Amino acid sequence: MLTVTAYGANSATSPLEPLTIERRDVGPRDVLIAIRYAGICHSDIHTIREEWGPISFPQVVGHEIVGEVVEVGSEVTAHAVGDRVGVGCMVNSCGECAQCLAGDEHNCEKGNTQTYGSVDRDGTITQGGYSTHVVVDEHFVLKVPESIPYEAAAPLLCAGITTYSPLARWGAGPEKKVAVVGMGGLGHMAVKIAVAMGADVTVLSRTDAKREDALAFGASQHVATGEEGALAGLAGTFDLIINTVSAALDMNAYLATLRPKGTLVNVGAPPEALPIQVFSLIMGGRSFAGSNIGSIRETQDMLDFCAEQGIAPEVEVISADAINDAYERVIAGDVRYRFVIDTATL
Amino acid sequence: MLTVTAYGANSATSPLEPLTIERRDVGPRDVLIAIRYAGICHSDIHTIREEWGPISFPQVVGHEIVGEVVEVGSEVTAHAVGDRVGVGCMVNSCGECAQCLAGDEHNCEKGNTQTYGSVDRDGTITQGGYSTHVVVDEHFVLKVPESIPYEAAAPLLCAGITTYSPLARWGAGPEKKVAVVGMGGLGHMAVKIAVAMGADVTVLSRTDAKREDALAFGASQHVATGEEGALAGLAGTFDLIINTVSAALDMNAYLATLRPKGTLVNVGAPPEALPIQVFSLIMGGRSFAGSNIGSIRETQDMLDFCAEQGIAPEVEVISADAINDAYERVIAGDVRYRFVIDTATL
Repeated sequence: MLTVTAYGANSATSPLEPLTIERRDVGPRDVLIAIRYAGICHSDIHTIREEWGPISFPQVVGHEIVGEVVEVGSEVTAHAVGDRVGVGCMVNSCGECAQCLAGDEHNCEKGNTQTYGSVDRDGTITQGGYSTHVVVDEHFVLKVPESIPYEAAAPLLCAGITTYSPLARWGAGPEKKVAVVGMGGLGHMAVKIAVAMGADVTVLSRTDAKREDALAFGASQHVATGEEGALAGLAGTFDLIINTVSAALDMNAYLATLRPKGTLVNVGAPPEALPIQVFSLIMGGRSFAGSNIGSIRETQDMLDFCAEQGIAPEVEVISADAINDAYERVIAGDVRYRFVIDTATL
Repeated sequence: MLTVTAYGANSATSPLEPLTIERRDVGPRDVLIAIRYAGICHSDIHTIREEWGPISFPQVVGHEIVGEVVEVGSEVTAHAVGDRVGVGCMVNSCGECAQCLAGDEHNCEKGNTQTYGSVDRDGTITQGGYSTHVVVDEHFVLKVPESIPYEAAAPLLCAGITTYSPLARWGAGPEKKVAVVGMGGLGHMAVKIAVAMGADVTVLSRTDAKREDALAFGASQHVATGEEGALAGLAGTFDLIINTVSAALDMNAYLATLRPKGTLVNVGAPPEALPIQVFSLIMGGRSFAGSNIGSIRETQDMLDFCAEQGIAPEVEVISADAINDAYERVIAGDVRYRFVIDTATL
């Protein structure tokens, strides 16, 4: 076992603090990664405050992890010491079900092993990336292209793949009109990726606060949805809408902005059920869909795509002692657009 | 103008009765059809009883029309006198919008002209197929293959295309598991078409009343959803679900029976909004979609496919004086599986 420095919580109500955790010994197919940066995702906050259900403590969160390979197991072929690598939201899956065999580990029929808060194959609870080191099965380790700075690469492992996957699956590209609802950590990556794919992108945001940023990221249009009649004026416009907002929006108003055969994809999950007028789906053959991260292969595709296109998240690098304050700012929506922890400060 | 015999209503509350209506003169691009049979769709009843909003009277309904071409306009090239033809739910569209130009007349941005109850290009209200003759623009006239008997062909023009279109769009075929919810006029065609496409088909019906029919139509399985735990036992099973039921079912329970990336398509529209748990869409990247008839090209594809595969609806041929009784039986679900009016009895 390796004892490593981390930053985590001892209860749902206590602030995060320095602590030590154990990582398993490097097995034949494992990779030991010296973590350089770890992104802060809103999911980290929901999880550690038990807003999504009870967890065991102490718990370290973080599933936007980048660093350098410092040791590999005897059977590892995909990675070598010195490689720039990343780890996202999952660190294992059954490998045997139809979904895993099809390369869709994120849809593993037995449930994949999440990077933190999941029961690992050795029975321990997985611990996340706010830490100096992590041991991960090589299949779940991504290659981070040289051209993406470590700190900017971190949020790609969750915010990047979560938006890339539905944009790719539903065909964002030239001659397609894509709307992105909400421009936070996920939304701003959705805009950059959709623009890089060649789509005409509109940002739908409650206020005008981020209008300039939206246009700077390549959006052709920004609409403040808080203004009366804003959505009604967009009826029948979009081929694809990526909704990154977890609040209960009026989905029927957004569905009406889809062109025929268009799809509205939620990547944020409001806790309450949303009332859907089926008629608004039937007319024009529209779809209301969901999407959850993406496969390992897609995640690598996304990293390579971002490197080729020269796009990366906007990040604010913080030290470990600023994590608790950063959490409050994430909740307040006061971040442009992702906090990334410099693990050298742990 | 042509004065023709029909069967329609003079008010939302009066029974249907014999009446005469006028058809426009045969224009350069028009086809005059001597109607042989007209199917009875539940939409006919909703419309004429003003359950979907006010209409003008007298009104003749019917959008499952088959017959023989008896006259063609001077510019007609697609059809000739003596041809076996059909007309479905629409008889015109703008022909100029992006949807029409792409061959998706059913999604016409200006709204297509429905076979009955729509404002026609000459300002009159379109009158449906419970009639001896109809005049239709040649583009909206389908060819009915010789091998499909007239009376069996009629329901294909609505029930057939409404189920064929989503089955084709979402890839029903070999190695795909398809569920059909509800086995009425639409549902029984969904089963036959999905089976002919090579899919493994399950019928989900409230009771066991139609189990034998479902298996006879080629379904591999019939599940009575009224039984406790029936849906829970099907979790993660289907690639595609075609929901033909217009009542407000518990959609989250049905969504849970989809495999990852599966789609539940409603072709029936309950009037009330349905509560959707977004989490059940996000996990596995599932979709909840709608579908509304299909394009003219797809409708022809469907007719040709049914002819090739030797499939056709199960029909009960009735005379005009049985229409009012037939309506009550449709409402009671007492029809296996589609009433078709022999227009020789008008």
